[in-house]
Amino acid sequence: MRIGVIGNNTASLQTRRLAYEVGKEIAKGGGILICGGLGGVMEAACQGTRDAGGMTVGILPGSSSKEANPYVSIPIVTGFSHGRNIIVVRSSEAIIAIEGSYGTLSEIAFALILDIPVIGLNTWLPHREGHESPPLIAAKDPEEAVRLAIDSISSQKKSLE
Amino acid sequence: MRIGVIGNNTASLQTRRLAYEVGKEIAKGGGILICGGLGGVMEAACQGTRDAGGMTVGILPGSSSKEANPYVSIPIVTGFSHGRNIIVVRSSEAIIAIEGSYGTLSEIAFALILDIPVIGLNTWLPHREGHESPPLIAAKDPEEAVRLAIDSISSQKKSLE
Amino acid sequence: MRIGVIGNNTASLQTRRLAYEVGKEIAKGGGILICGGLGGVMEAACQGTRDAGGMTVGILPGSSSKEANPYVSIPIVTGFSHGRNIIVVRSSEAIIAIEGSYGTLSEIAFALILDIPVIGLNTWLPHREGHESPPLIAAKDPEEAVRLAIDSISSQKKSLE
Amino acid sequence: MRIGVIGNNTASLQTRRLAYEVGKEIAKGGGILICGGLGGVMEAACQGTRDAGGMTVGILPGSSSKEANPYVSIPIVTGFSHGRNIIVVRSSEAIIAIEGSYGTLSEIAFALILDIPVIGLNTWLPHREGHESPPLIAAKDPEEAVRLAIDSISSQKKSLE
Repeated sequence: MRIGVIGNNTASLQTRRLAYEVGKEIAKGGGILICGGLGGVMEAACQGTRDAGGMTVGILPGSSSKEANPYVSIPIVTGFSHGRNIIVVRSSEAIIAIEGSYGTLSEIAFALILDIPVIGLNTWLPHREGHESPPLIAAKDPEEAVRLAIDSISSQKKSLE
Repeated sequence: MRIGVIGNNTASLQTRRLAYEVGKEIAKGGGILICGGLGGVMEAACQGTRDAGGMTVGILPGSSSKEANPYVSIPIVTGFSHGRNIIVVRSSEAIIAIEGSYGTLSEIAFALILDIPVIGLNTWLPHREGHESPPLIAAKDPEEAVRLAIDSISSQKKSLE
Repeated sequence: MRIGVIGNNTASLQTRRLAYEVGKEIAKGGGILICGGLGGVMEAACQGTRDAGGMTVGILPGSSSKEANPYVSIPIVTGFSHGRNIIVVRSSEAIIAIEGSYGTLSEIAFALILDIPVIGLNTWLPHREGHESPPLIAAKDPEEAVRLAIDSISSQKKSLE
Repeated sequence: MRIGVIGNNTASLQTRRLAYEVGKEIAKGGGILICGGLGGVMEAACQGTRDAGGMTVGILPGSSSKEANPYVSIPIVTGFSHGRNIIVVRSSEAIIAIEGSYGTLSEIAFALILDIPVIGLNTWLPHREGHESPPLIAAKDPEEAVRLAIDSISSQKKSLE
């Protein structure tokens, strides 16, 4: 199971704690963490996953593996700048969005295009007059977020059988 | 002046009329139209620009110039699927978003990341608790949308002098 | 007709003269010049095309249209670094390679993958034991290079009718 | 250590045996295998790495993880078609090229641009009049290829200390 975690490159202590717990729960659930490989939410989530014995993939925007945070197990070096956001999304079977700014919004949009489930922890709610509400799933805490992500992946697989 | 027009690949007659007028106004203002090169809003906008004697660029997702709508002057063939959305945005000095679905939302997000002005005609309003409201500019009709786009480009240039 | 010109970002006076003539012949043949938008061969070719009244497209690696050479009519801003090389190739109906280094080699390889004709002016000859020779066409001067490019595009179109 | 293996999507039994041995040696040397994730050389190399207890990353061109060969541990889904070739290269610290066609040639070219060592097993030799010979390293068998790849990575690291 590959679970993406998206959020800001810089984050408050409180937000990083949330991300750390999300990362930890992913490893405990047997998942691999996919992310953008940089700091803030990405780094805290990677640290959580690694501390719980899991593996992390960082899909980097720049041209060197050196920009990866220290908790990335496998750096993927794209050189595509923000153009790598869609690869983070496509490579994940479900996405957990933690707060976030416009980069996170772009990734939520790609997940919606590609029908990849998005679980939100205080994240974007896009609204457009005359358009159905996006099927974003709100979670109240990291445990619930990861459980909902795992459930959505399992039910996708079941529906394909 | 390069003005991007973003919106759905299929669109109602009413929406295509809006897009056509936007395209026409871009040509009348001396602009080049940048878009994703496909149907719906993109095709109607390209037709408007061409009918008024202007030039259009279609930045295509697939691997053949044949997928361009017939009003694209210059097809750019990326083969990057939705990964081309960021190129549509980066190549524009201002963006006009006409309604739209999640692809349009991804392009609005990239414009916000890259500080490229977005003028909206009944488009997405992303909201997040604790995050400032995105600086999207609402227009009431095609004329105003194009005027606001041109003004935002001119004032950017002035502020750089 | 969209003709790509590929070659180094820095070039000797002699090489730039070749590229300038290629650009001029493209415009005289009614073609649009596609290139990577930077200096050296790209800049000289763009200047030739513009001096003869033609149009040029520069598909840029970086994140700003400011990196385009002054003879680019339409800058396409990718932010994909060398990842934009394949877009230069895909957007062209034939490619003229003028000398060049490894970036040019990557573009020749993509043209070979995609079955886009490559006309060479003193450019790469890739060889592999046990593999057929790549179908590169050598030209003796700019006039012949552009004529061969135009002929190859015309015969492709005829074979599709 | 991340070692890339590049080569054709379809391959003879003999070539797949070479690739399998390369994959096995990578795992025995403690490396992670990076590749394009499809069949032929990529699949055989992945199988070799997995059989020896190692991990494999497949950077896929299409839009689904289902196109990965069964020996890919971690699929990275790009949707960028051949545009993903540069990501295979950038994510590797050294590249082993096994025979190959034009896709392989494009990856060798990118490795040369990016100064990533390329070890060749009967692969391309690009030549251009007036250009220095590309610094490709020929290996006589899989064991030597992997040893040269590991040595080149180690000496890079040493020279950075």
